[in-house]
Amino acid sequence: MASWFRRSRPRAEAPSLTQRDAAVAALRVDLAELTPPVEHFLGQCAALHMTFFEALSHATANAPRIADKDALARVCDISLRRYLALVAELERHKLDRTDVMEPHLIGVEEFERRTQGADWHEQVASAHVTIGFLTDFWMRLAGGLPSPTREAVQAALSEGDLQSPMHRIIEGQIAANPRLSSRLALWCRRLVGDTMLQARSALVFHGDHAREEAQIEPVFTELIAAHTRRMDRLGLTA
Amino acid sequence: MASWFRRSRPRAEAPSLTQRDAAVAALRVDLAELTPPVEHFLGQCAALHMTFFEALSHATANAPRIADKDALARVCDISLRRYLALVAELERHKLDRTDVMEPHLIGVEEFERRTQGADWHEQVASAHVTIGFLTDFWMRLAGGLPSPTREAVQAALSEGDLQSPMHRIIEGQIAANPRLSSRLALWCRRLVGDTMLQARSALVFHGDHAREEAQIEPVFTELIAAHTRRMDRLGLTA
Repeated sequence: MASWFRRSRPRAEAPSLTQRDAAVAALRVDLAELTPPVEHFLGQCAALHMTFFEALSHATANAPRIADKDALARVCDISLRRYLALVAELERHKLDRTDVMEPHLIGVEEFERRTQGADWHEQVASAHVTIGFLTDFWMRLAGGLPSPTREAVQAALSEGDLQSPMHRIIEGQIAANPRLSSRLALWCRRLVGDTMLQARSALVFHGDHAREEAQIEPVFTELIAAHTRRMDRLGLTA
Repeated sequence: MASWFRRSRPRAEAPSLTQRDAAVAALRVDLAELTPPVEHFLGQCAALHMTFFEALSHATANAPRIADKDALARVCDISLRRYLALVAELERHKLDRTDVMEPHLIGVEEFERRTQGADWHEQVASAHVTIGFLTDFWMRLAGGLPSPTREAVQAALSEGDLQSPMHRIIEGQIAANPRLSSRLALWCRRLVGDTMLQARSALVFHGDHAREEAQIEPVFTELIAAHTRRMDRLGLTA
C-alpha cells in the first residue's frame, strides 16, 4: 500500500511514468477480482454520483458570472444523467435504491466534505480532479461486472463530456488570475490522497495481500498518470 | 400597492376569495400591458430559473436520506430542463445569454439569499412556495409575449412536475415531526412578501398608476389564492 501512496507525488517520478505506462499496458492486470458484487457496486457508484452532482451544483451556485454558471449547470445536467442511468440499472436488478445506496452515504459525504474547496476556484478544481480520477477508476472497476451490467455502467459513466467544460473554466480562471495556478496546483495535489482512498474503499479484498496489491498498484499508477496529464494540460504541477 | 400587500394574509379574507376568484375570472385582466420586452423577459426568467436550480440542488445536498435526495435530484433535473429550454429560446432570438441574464443576477441572487431557509425543512418549503408562486406568475406574464415565444416559454415552464414531489417530501417531514408544521406555516407566510416583490420586479410600468395597479391586483389575488390552496393541502395555515 505504501508503494502506491508514494505515487501520489508523481512529478518526482515523472520520467519513469511513460516507461511504466507502456509496461503496464502490456501486462494490464485489471481489477476484476477486486470488483464488488453488483449490488454493492451500483449502490456505492450511484451514491458517489449523487455527491458529484452535489459538488458540481455547489460550484454552479458559487460561480460569480452567468457564463460559468451556465457552463457548470450543463455539467450538472450530465452528472444527473449519469446518476439517473445508474439508478435505472439498479432498478433493472430489482434493487431498492435506498437499501443499496444508504450504506454508502456516510462514506461518500465524508469524502465530499474533505475535498470541498474553500472557494469557487478550488471547488471547480476539486470537481475536475476527483470526478476525473474516480470516473476513470469506476470505468475500470466496472470491467469486473457481469454483462450486461458492465456495459450499462460503462455507458452511464461515459455519458456526456464532464471534463472539457471544467478544464475550460479553470483555464479561464488561471488566465484571469495567474497567481491562482500555484494555489490550485497545491490544492489538486492535496486532493489525490483522499481521492485514492475513496477509490480503494470500493475494492473487495479476499485476503491474498501480495496478489491483491499487485493488481491494484499498476491501476493506480495509470490513474495517477492520467491525473498528471490532466494537470499538465492546465499548466499545473501535479 | 398596499391593497395587494394586505392580501399576503389571505386566510383572514378566505370567505371572500372564492367569490373574488369567480369575479376575477369573469373580468380577467391579464398582465399583457406590463409584460417586459422579450429580451428582458427571457433574461430575467432564465436567471431566476438558474437560482431555482441552485436552491433545489442546495436542498438536495442537505437532505439527510437517500430517498429524499433522489426525489429532489429529479426535481433538480426538471428545473434544469426548464432553464435549458429558456436559454434555447433566448438563443433562437440570437440573444447572448450572458448579456441578457447578467443584469438580473444580483436581483435574483438577493431573492435566493432572502428566501433560503435555515435548515433542510425550510429549504424544501421555500422551494415549494417560491417556485410554485413564481411559476404561476411567469406563466401568466408570458401571456403578454408575442407568438411563438409565448408558447415556447409556457412549454418550458410547464415541463415536468416540480410541485408534487416537493409536496410529498414536506408531507413526509410533517408526518415524521408534527411540531414542524407551525414553524413551516410561519416560514411560508414569511416568504410571500419577498416572493411577490420578486414577481413585481419583472413588471414594466408605463406611468398610468391607477390603471396598472388595477391590472396587478386581481392577478396577485389569484396567485395568493393558489398559494393558500398549496398550503392548505399541506395542512399549513397560509
